[in-house]
This record gives sequence, C-alpha cells and structure tokens, in this order.
Amino acid sequence: MIPTHIEHIGIAVRSLETSIPYYEKVLGLKCYNIETVEDQKVKTAFFKVGQTKIELLEPTSPESTIAKFIEKKGEGVHHIAYAVPDVALALQEAEAAGVQLIDKAPRAGAEGLNIAFLHPKSTGGVLTELCEQPK
Amino acid sequence: MIPTHIEHIGIAVRSLETSIPYYEKVLGLKCYNIETVEDQKVKTAFFKVGQTKIELLEPTSPESTIAKFIEKKGEGVHHIAYAVPDVALALQEAEAAGVQLIDKAPRAGAEGLNIAFLHPKSTGGVLTELCEQPK
Repeated sequence: MIPTHIEHIGIAVRSLETSIPYYEKVLGLKCYNIETVEDQKVKTAFFKVGQTKIELLEPTSPESTIAKFIEKKGEGVHHIAYAVPDVALALQEAEAAGVQLIDKAPRAGAEGLNIAFLHPKSTGGVLTELCEQPK
Repeated sequence: MIPTHIEHIGIAVRSLETSIPYYEKVLGLKCYNIETVEDQKVKTAFFKVGQTKIELLEPTSPESTIAKFIEKKGEGVHHIAYAVPDVALALQEAEAAGVQLIDKAPRAGAEGLNIAFLHPKSTGGVLTELCEQPK
C-alpha cells in the first residue's frame, strides 16, 4: 500500500463539551462537524489541520471500546488513520505480510469513508486505520 | 495560534531495527533519515506521508523519557506535533489560556526545527509539540 497522507488522528476524550473548547481556543482549530457513529457507540467531533483531521471520540455508552480505552489508559491518542487509494487491496497486502486484521473487509466509517483497522499487536502498539473515499 | 499542518507524529518503539521494516514493507513508507538526539537520549527514524512525518523514537538509555514511557504504557503514539508559524508566540498564547508548558521557550529539536512541548495534563492526555522551521 502507498498512503497519500494522514487522514485523521483519533483521540479518545471523556467529553466533547470539555475538549472542543481546548482545540478551538488554544490550538486555534475549528470544529466543523459533530457526528454520532451508532454502531461504534461514539460521538465524534472533527477539526481540520492541513491535510489531516483531528477526530475527537466521546463514548456514548460504557460498552463502547472508547469507554474501555479511557478506563484503561486515560484520555489520549486512540488511533492513526492513513488515507490509501484502495482499502480492500491494502488489507490483502497487509494480511499477506503477516499483519493481524481487525476488519477483514472495508466497512462504513464516519464522514462517509470506507475504513478498516489493523490490530495494534501487529503495528507496534499503534491502532492503525486505513481509509478511502468511496468511489 | 493557527497550526498549518501536523508536522509529525512521534511513536515510541523499543527498536528501530524491528520497527522500520514494518513501516517500509507493510505501510509502504520510506525511511529517509535516522538521527540521534543526544540530549533527549533517543535515536529517531523519519518517514514522510503527505505533509506529515512519522517519527519513530527508540530510547538510547534507560533514563530516556521514551524508555520510561514504554515501560509504563508500552510501544505506541508518544506525541503529536503541530507546525505553527511562531513557536514563541504560540507558547505565550497557550500559557495565557491556562495551558501548562513543559518548555517555557523554544529549543532545538530533530531535523533542525525549533520546538516546545505542552503538558498532557492541559491537553486532554495528548503530549503536544509545537514546531517551526527556523527563520
């Protein structure tokens, strides 16, 4: 695979209401979208900085993987998402290289992207997402 | 402050020798520079993806903050670095907004940049670096 840029950085937060003002007032970014992703039990807030989005992730249920992440590690960076031209092909290549996949096939993510995750066991501790704009 | 892009993502690794092949062979990035930063007791490897660098950080001493980070949290994302036009001014603005600073003034970082860190206590758990190209 050849990623074109960092599509976004996912950051786990307890509360969007508390975190958005930090990103807007201190870092000078602008929240341009808030979206709930029901099947991941998160509410997300998006900011743009150059080619990359900051995606804040607030759990909407204690069963959310984000809630479990915060419980275990505290607030902080949850995942890095690389933009690739073809997620399905990138997954095949990663699997062939011995990488453990979380998603065997692309699925729908926030902001209309096709996404899939690689397991942090295979990626040096970094939960890694691959994304593409749908064709 | 108004960041222009994500300058780099700093990732703590036990061994560059083990991690570089993952970034090159699986993610398809190319390591273009390896640099030791003596005062931070780290050896760094750089990859470029769009506007952003991936900076792998291997501790060169058990007293390195990166060694302590890995001991406590394991390998993974260590910090996010925002490119800003003027680090000294950005630090003033951050401090005025109540952010705890790690560096009160810019200092020399890897790749010839002027850098400074904000404390993760003030930034929602994300160790945050500000960088500028020297004028």
